[in-house]
Amino acid sequence: MIKAAVIGVGYWGPNIVRNMSASPDIDILYCSDLQQERLDYINGLYPAIKTSTNFKEIISKPEIDLIAVCTPVYTHFEIAKEALLAGKHVFLEKPMTSTAAQAEELINIAEQKNLKIFVDHTFIFTGAVKKIKEVITSGELGDLYYFDSVRVNLGLFQHDINVIWDLAPHDISIMHYLLGSYPESVTATGADHLGNGLEDIAYMTVYYPNNLLAHIHTNWMSPVKIRQTLIAGKKKMAVWDDNHPSEKVRIYDKGIEVVQSKDQIYKTLIQYRTGDMYCPKLDGTEALKDEMANIAYSIESDIKPLVDGHAGWMVVKILEAAQESIKARGKEVKV
Amino acid sequence: MIKAAVIGVGYWGPNIVRNMSASPDIDILYCSDLQQERLDYINGLYPAIKTSTNFKEIISKPEIDLIAVCTPVYTHFEIAKEALLAGKHVFLEKPMTSTAAQAEELINIAEQKNLKIFVDHTFIFTGAVKKIKEVITSGELGDLYYFDSVRVNLGLFQHDINVIWDLAPHDISIMHYLLGSYPESVTATGADHLGNGLEDIAYMTVYYPNNLLAHIHTNWMSPVKIRQTLIAGKKKMAVWDDNHPSEKVRIYDKGIEVVQSKDQIYKTLIQYRTGDMYCPKLDGTEALKDEMANIAYSIESDIKPLVDGHAGWMVVKILEAAQESIKARGKEVKV
Amino acid sequence: MIKAAVIGVGYWGPNIVRNMSASPDIDILYCSDLQQERLDYINGLYPAIKTSTNFKEIISKPEIDLIAVCTPVYTHFEIAKEALLAGKHVFLEKPMTSTAAQAEELINIAEQKNLKIFVDHTFIFTGAVKKIKEVITSGELGDLYYFDSVRVNLGLFQHDINVIWDLAPHDISIMHYLLGSYPESVTATGADHLGNGLEDIAYMTVYYPNNLLAHIHTNWMSPVKIRQTLIAGKKKMAVWDDNHPSEKVRIYDKGIEVVQSKDQIYKTLIQYRTGDMYCPKLDGTEALKDEMANIAYSIESDIKPLVDGHAGWMVVKILEAAQESIKARGKEVKV
Amino acid sequence: MIKAAVIGVGYWGPNIVRNMSASPDIDILYCSDLQQERLDYINGLYPAIKTSTNFKEIISKPEIDLIAVCTPVYTHFEIAKEALLAGKHVFLEKPMTSTAAQAEELINIAEQKNLKIFVDHTFIFTGAVKKIKEVITSGELGDLYYFDSVRVNLGLFQHDINVIWDLAPHDISIMHYLLGSYPESVTATGADHLGNGLEDIAYMTVYYPNNLLAHIHTNWMSPVKIRQTLIAGKKKMAVWDDNHPSEKVRIYDKGIEVVQSKDQIYKTLIQYRTGDMYCPKLDGTEALKDEMANIAYSIESDIKPLVDGHAGWMVVKILEAAQESIKARGKEVKV
Repeated sequence: MIKAAVIGVGYWGPNIVRNMSASPDIDILYCSDLQQERLDYINGLYPAIKTSTNFKEIISKPEIDLIAVCTPVYTHFEIAKEALLAGKHVFLEKPMTSTAAQAEELINIAEQKNLKIFVDHTFIFTGAVKKIKEVITSGELGDLYYFDSVRVNLGLFQHDINVIWDLAPHDISIMHYLLGSYPESVTATGADHLGNGLEDIAYMTVYYPNNLLAHIHTNWMSPVKIRQTLIAGKKKMAVWDDNHPSEKVRIYDKGIEVVQSKDQIYKTLIQYRTGDMYCPKLDGTEALKDEMANIAYSIESDIKPLVDGHAGWMVVKILEAAQESIKARGKEVKV
Repeated sequence: MIKAAVIGVGYWGPNIVRNMSASPDIDILYCSDLQQERLDYINGLYPAIKTSTNFKEIISKPEIDLIAVCTPVYTHFEIAKEALLAGKHVFLEKPMTSTAAQAEELINIAEQKNLKIFVDHTFIFTGAVKKIKEVITSGELGDLYYFDSVRVNLGLFQHDINVIWDLAPHDISIMHYLLGSYPESVTATGADHLGNGLEDIAYMTVYYPNNLLAHIHTNWMSPVKIRQTLIAGKKKMAVWDDNHPSEKVRIYDKGIEVVQSKDQIYKTLIQYRTGDMYCPKLDGTEALKDEMANIAYSIESDIKPLVDGHAGWMVVKILEAAQESIKARGKEVKV
Repeated sequence: MIKAAVIGVGYWGPNIVRNMSASPDIDILYCSDLQQERLDYINGLYPAIKTSTNFKEIISKPEIDLIAVCTPVYTHFEIAKEALLAGKHVFLEKPMTSTAAQAEELINIAEQKNLKIFVDHTFIFTGAVKKIKEVITSGELGDLYYFDSVRVNLGLFQHDINVIWDLAPHDISIMHYLLGSYPESVTATGADHLGNGLEDIAYMTVYYPNNLLAHIHTNWMSPVKIRQTLIAGKKKMAVWDDNHPSEKVRIYDKGIEVVQSKDQIYKTLIQYRTGDMYCPKLDGTEALKDEMANIAYSIESDIKPLVDGHAGWMVVKILEAAQESIKARGKEVKV
Repeated sequence: MIKAAVIGVGYWGPNIVRNMSASPDIDILYCSDLQQERLDYINGLYPAIKTSTNFKEIISKPEIDLIAVCTPVYTHFEIAKEALLAGKHVFLEKPMTSTAAQAEELINIAEQKNLKIFVDHTFIFTGAVKKIKEVITSGELGDLYYFDSVRVNLGLFQHDINVIWDLAPHDISIMHYLLGSYPESVTATGADHLGNGLEDIAYMTVYYPNNLLAHIHTNWMSPVKIRQTLIAGKKKMAVWDDNHPSEKVRIYDKGIEVVQSKDQIYKTLIQYRTGDMYCPKLDGTEALKDEMANIAYSIESDIKPLVDGHAGWMVVKILEAAQESIKARGKEVKV
């Protein structure tokens, strides 16, 4: 049984408390928050959890194995570093840190102390992403051509981060997991319509080797909610519509083939091929449940977690590059 | 009655022949094509039309008022220039020319000789675009924030132009018509997966003054057909789904407003507002019929056409800039 | 503050416990169930609630105002009658009773003792139904022509009731609330594919005065989930798609008009008219919250509840008629 | 080469003329219509076709093999009978005749004279219906449970027939072709909202042996266009959405299975099973082209057509029964 503490129970933290509590492998002993009323709220639901407004006090508890950090992003580094130095495994909300350099430092400390870092990229544990990964890995799609993700809706504006730091960590973590290779560079554009310096709409292209192109559109100002990802390979193509109530993933037996044409002036030489489409049944297990199990198993068996510090670092690295590119109106930034 | 000739009756030309023939205001007297079999095909359908494999012969006919140029893009300039110099009005397939410089030269000649140039941006004449233009012009959307257009499907690959020269002229012409202002610069990315130097997927951001951002995604390799445009303003937002059989345009009474929050740490200050949505009834007149009527009326009354040479030039100008930016991996190119 | 007890906390009862607990106007003091483990489950969540496996014991408590009956349908009558005779208001799960005669007896007892009966027709309290009621009442649709409701999915089969007793109470209660008139007769068809005498698919037509026709399709064996209702009037038509994530209710400015045709042999005299469509913004309050508030207010102010015993009786009356008609292969049964 | 004549070129006849003209196997020599202007219209398009306002004159031509009857339904019998008696094969618009007795008489005459009757049930030749037939025949769906078809839109009202005679021939012909067995009885309901005695909305249940239930909803007064058919079998289920631009047929690996439950009071014994879904690629050949080829092949090779007089008779038989049942408010009528 992993003994855990959660630091930060404001907006998202209570979900982590709930999921860790429900996990048969994790026991939450402590929670911390700067606001006493948030701790009172938690205690109303979970009377057995001990609380403190001082996170350092909690980190110092010897019985704790794992510190979950659910505070604002700019505080992740300080808290996680202190936890690692105190010999605790660390679970971090996404994005992992404010800078890639911070992420690297945490990774180094963890390696030196043989501790694990987990980052809360929950989508990696959904049935949809697991199935698409399986389809790609099996070779069913063939060599990948592009990854195109749209995540737009009329959203709550964040007051301290822009739309890419808010929404794109989902898409980048999924992209990195599915494509499985190291990106070359990023170019991004965006606009801030409220004059507070925080983009509310952004487009990001990520160049991968072998002509693989990735693109992410995030937007807080769309009248309609779209959560759609297209992934095309040489042999087949996949569409993931996360809004669809039942048929989220579709695999199309569609592709391009070269055809010899007699009439070369009016006809083209490259034509498309189209066959059946299928929607695979997806694993219905709740993603957060799977994630908690993976965390517990990874600590207990000392194996690499599915989403480790490197995955978290990659997300921050690409966010940083995109941010820099947006400010320079699409300038290519190496990753 | 306008007397017209059509040059080029390969892939698209027959549609122009059909629509001009059906117009009560236009009479087609001649067709030209390099291939005799295409002319025979036209004569099978329209026995009264005279044909020639020599386009110069047709341009020289004194009774002709209007020359429609439906040949491959790289030949537009030469044919159109000769037609203008012979004193004929000119109707050009989109994109108007291969370079913006060519478009400028044609515009100059036409102005000197008091002739009209028409460019076949058919979407401008659809009920959907007319309605959206009306909604924007009336101020119903408020100041515009962004224009986002997606035009993807598994398409016929062109053997001489890439996906932006093939598909984006639709989106650019619509964008230019609806936004009504002059763009500042373009940044674009894309990839060529078949190794022939022609991008099959491309993303283009167009910067406009006043923080108005436009983005166009064109793609020949999508397993699903998407033709969707989001246009958001300060007051309302519009969605145009051209695939929807009956409800193509939706106007959402949605927007962003600043709200004072008591709990400033966990809540944001900017929230969204949401009200009714409506689908306006659209004018059901066929776009090409309207377009032909506008051409005839423009010549007969000597008034500016709805889609003139400047509109055609703008499309080519942006295509050129996007092309340059794609090759330089997203470098900003001034328009 | 209304003091309540819940009898039956198996499948649906815990939801009632949760909603009554969350209501600022209702206080749950007792729960009863035949199975001790269900009571233990409730006590795990709500330690303050007292429990008993003997419902009679709870009904006899003098401090209780309201008894909620969430047991299997065939036990509703006995429990509710005892509660009414003990001077308690009664809230009944739908359908209210197994027979219309039982419903009538309960209504009579309640009237004699000046007690209230509430039936859990939750849909009446949704934003969608409230809006449609408003649109109909305002005369916007004009005289009503038909009501067509489809409620199908691959559902959990019930072991003691057929698909109409399981699903159609939703549609019938909505229909009765929206149409507001007394039906004349019912004809229904159905089939039992598992050989247990319980129909898994059923179609029901309900005849109303003035040529108003209602039809309900319920089905446990549909591969797709459909929850769609069409309501057409002389002036406008409404569509309610309860599966749509955001645009559940659509009002179409569509109708029929008589047109004089010159060419009477090939053209018809009656044509359709089509205008804008709009999706009204719906009240987002949770239906169960509204329902609880209505119950408390009705008891405290001694006013007629929105869903009273007569509404519950009408549902059972139509279910009975439909059942009889199904067994007689569509024979018309007077209501 | 089959030599054909078309009688009736008002509303639908010109489509038959066009398709027969385009067929490499059929040559149209004559057309007839009571109105000279319709014949002039045909001659404008097809100058080689000879015309007459007297259909008897055309039937008597010895060189004609096939008479296509595209006149109003109430005239089908007289014209077709005269054509058969003159030794011609007959192609009839749907519905075949006004009464089943008339259809029987035509079938008898055709058999005696060894002539063929074809009925224009075009949907039988679509890729969607061919694929569903293949899936059913292969046993993939298992024993059939139900067939549910909805065909509703805001339609042109017919001035001489009600909505079932107008729309249901499509559904009935498809149902008969797919289910392949003989129905037992029909019960139907409907309403006439314009007071002309012609129902504009109708529901029809058709009982088949072995608990197979079919239902057809036809409606001229729906604000939305729905063309959807559900077909469920013991093993799998199919959905045909004819409005979907690309994925018309879906095969769901879903069904019902009996599960032993430990907790028999709160859980049911029968649960659903759900697996992958697939959309088979459909044959894209135009249905009318296939139909014409089948007609020509059937005459030339003297084999049974895919849609013969018996198929046409079955449609009329069920329409008659439904009509009788509607007038008797759902009374079961034996077929």
